[in-house]
Amino acid sequence: MKHLTGIDRLEPGDRDAILHLAQDYADRLAAGESVAPVLRGRIVLHMFFENSTRTSTSFEIAAKRLGADVVAWAPETSSLSKGESFADTVSTLNAMRPDAVVIRHKEFGAPEFVANNVACPVINAGDSWREHPTQALLDALTLRQHFGDLKGRTIAICGDIAHSRVAASGIRLLSQMGMTVRVIAPKLLLPPKFPVPVQAFETLEDGLKGCDAVMMLRLQKERMQEGLIGSDAEFFRLYGLTQERLARANKGAVVLHPGPMNRNVEIADDVADDPERSLILKQVENGVPVRMAVLDLLMQH
Amino acid sequence: MKHLTGIDRLEPGDRDAILHLAQDYADRLAAGESVAPVLRGRIVLHMFFENSTRTSTSFEIAAKRLGADVVAWAPETSSLSKGESFADTVSTLNAMRPDAVVIRHKEFGAPEFVANNVACPVINAGDSWREHPTQALLDALTLRQHFGDLKGRTIAICGDIAHSRVAASGIRLLSQMGMTVRVIAPKLLLPPKFPVPVQAFETLEDGLKGCDAVMMLRLQKERMQEGLIGSDAEFFRLYGLTQERLARANKGAVVLHPGPMNRNVEIADDVADDPERSLILKQVENGVPVRMAVLDLLMQH
Amino acid sequence: MKHLTGIDRLEPGDRDAILHLAQDYADRLAAGESVAPVLRGRIVLHMFFENSTRTSTSFEIAAKRLGADVVAWAPETSSLSKGESFADTVSTLNAMRPDAVVIRHKEFGAPEFVANNVACPVINAGDSWREHPTQALLDALTLRQHFGDLKGRTIAICGDIAHSRVAASGIRLLSQMGMTVRVIAPKLLLPPKFPVPVQAFETLEDGLKGCDAVMMLRLQKERMQEGLIGSDAEFFRLYGLTQERLARANKGAVVLHPGPMNRNVEIADDVADDPERSLILKQVENGVPVRMAVLDLLMQH
Repeated sequence: MKHLTGIDRLEPGDRDAILHLAQDYADRLAAGESVAPVLRGRIVLHMFFENSTRTSTSFEIAAKRLGADVVAWAPETSSLSKGESFADTVSTLNAMRPDAVVIRHKEFGAPEFVANNVACPVINAGDSWREHPTQALLDALTLRQHFGDLKGRTIAICGDIAHSRVAASGIRLLSQMGMTVRVIAPKLLLPPKFPVPVQAFETLEDGLKGCDAVMMLRLQKERMQEGLIGSDAEFFRLYGLTQERLARANKGAVVLHPGPMNRNVEIADDVADDPERSLILKQVENGVPVRMAVLDLLMQH
Repeated sequence: MKHLTGIDRLEPGDRDAILHLAQDYADRLAAGESVAPVLRGRIVLHMFFENSTRTSTSFEIAAKRLGADVVAWAPETSSLSKGESFADTVSTLNAMRPDAVVIRHKEFGAPEFVANNVACPVINAGDSWREHPTQALLDALTLRQHFGDLKGRTIAICGDIAHSRVAASGIRLLSQMGMTVRVIAPKLLLPPKFPVPVQAFETLEDGLKGCDAVMMLRLQKERMQEGLIGSDAEFFRLYGLTQERLARANKGAVVLHPGPMNRNVEIADDVADDPERSLILKQVENGVPVRMAVLDLLMQH
Repeated sequence: MKHLTGIDRLEPGDRDAILHLAQDYADRLAAGESVAPVLRGRIVLHMFFENSTRTSTSFEIAAKRLGADVVAWAPETSSLSKGESFADTVSTLNAMRPDAVVIRHKEFGAPEFVANNVACPVINAGDSWREHPTQALLDALTLRQHFGDLKGRTIAICGDIAHSRVAASGIRLLSQMGMTVRVIAPKLLLPPKFPVPVQAFETLEDGLKGCDAVMMLRLQKERMQEGLIGSDAEFFRLYGLTQERLARANKGAVVLHPGPMNRNVEIADDVADDPERSLILKQVENGVPVRMAVLDLLMQH
């Protein structure tokens, strides 16, 4: 593994190594144990072309926990606004010899372009509607901590599947790890095809029966402006996860959400805060050790 | 002491420990001595909901002098702008396990809310018009360096008392340390009541007689827009600190200002720059060791 | 050498020491060798009054490669926007005892003002149209790596000479190091006089004959708005560096550009990307070791 640009390029062996090391880091962090600064003297360059404080903060904390320095390159104040091409910006930053690049970009394939044009490991922190591999890995870690082996388990991913990088990476990874993956969405929010076999449902009522886990996606308000969906209240009425709907899933079914949540739009307050069911904060918590593991494995080997 | 959310929660023993350690750090920094990186490997999370480069830079330098890493979470590019609740943002950041949080927020009580909802120490870097405890501590350190024991000394705090977090924390702390505290302001800029007994005056001419120290507050221009006060020139004529007015205070009286100054609005140039009287840059200088002491005591114990 | 405010204040001995140490750092970085964290525990304060991600990132990486911490003070969110004077801002930041200041400012002389008012070394990261000393040093290092001794070599600097801090510092330094310096520009973009003797030409056709190196400057689009020059296409027709024009220079002549490039405005794609001729990415690469050398020499001695 030289880069982490997408789940579609991740070998099962590397996936298992990441999850194994991430669990180790998660245990150490939870125990308040110190972590060896194995990346001291190394520089991680953040190239966030889209705002994402949550993800960039998680990556920054992960890098610093390992002793690395983080340099944040900010497009809004950069040469790009002076008309420099993306390719020239990438070559310029590469010439400064960072030890790793973490990139978020709205364009499909931007992380792979960077990976092909720099001398260091590249980690995709989300691109277009296609890939958000560290999110999928932290979701997998969270589910594995809860269920142990994921084989034979069923997860339903619900909401705006068509435009979700979280769904796209999650479907690939969780399916690869042996889960049965369902998607639940109005037809307009389903993509024309899927990279792996999934079961598609149009209502939570139908789709949740027999599920062990439910991943609610964030409702992207811009879809409303495009007329693809109606109001918050209408969306909640049709696709909001309530305790009543959740009761159709298997006993002990758990709930995930990549955040930030629109409370009472895609998820009811009492589901989001259900101490037995909600793994939402556990996901955030696992984000740091997963990213530590990815940085460690890519930068030390 | 688990947090520093306000002077109203600060025990005298903790206050003395902070001031003692701060003086120690101040001496080391002034001597150019190195400081042990006692917070190496620890992460201080900045949550500045209001801009404050001066205070955040002082905290950042303090943390880095102790070897800590600083991660700045910026609300303008964050999930809050995507509609996430303040409580969810706080829970999310807490799940990333920072070792301390430094927060500035315009809302009363926000730092205490954070303190009640995270697992690490929280330091209030200023909230609403209510508390700015590290400012009060650096003011106390500055005065103590000059006067030794503060008991029996008199300080006048002048300007927009009603809307000043600097005044609110300062009145509490300096009074607790034995100073007689006066406030000087037009009636419209006085709060209806005070947490501790103060002497109120409406003119500098009356209020400065017998003072050992004068703390001028920054004139907040938005008060003009609200019609509470007149023009810069008029304010200076009535409430600007000139050498002539300062002459009414005790011989050797000193001048403080939390900055940034509006020169020749609340304070005359020759007072601000008076090498015998002005402790204004000393206050800034003391900001770093005071914050080092607070971080050290909260994070190591 | 206490500061690096401009090439006009740089002694030849200091210049040679910088270039020597920079080459050493360049070699170590290229070999992937670790660099001793000689500035661990030291704080470099960035004061960038103008945006410049490229330069600030290069300085930040340089400082961090040496183990220093970087604190970025941002004018847009600062006390300056609250009406504080530049002098008070500088005094305030100095009172926080940074170990070095890196400043970019649009005003002529701002770095020298800072140097005269702080207790630590000051490095000019570009001011007005007058000085950009680390750019000149990295250009000199790049040329020296290619040619060895620069004595007797000829360089043509082309484009908007009058408004270019890169040209101003470069003309001084390269001339001092024994190069014959030419400038090529339309009359409106030439300054009325030069600090050292230069040969001025109005066309690339005339000016490139006999040159060993060509430095193309970035076309600053604001000059168009001022009516000093015409469209992109017209500028390229008259002053764009093409292979055909470059062929008039000496055999093996090399091309430099400080970036960011306007491709096919001041420089043709096939020149910018010519593996034999273009040293443009080498310049960026050399920026880091040159700034490491400057920080090291100023902060350790």
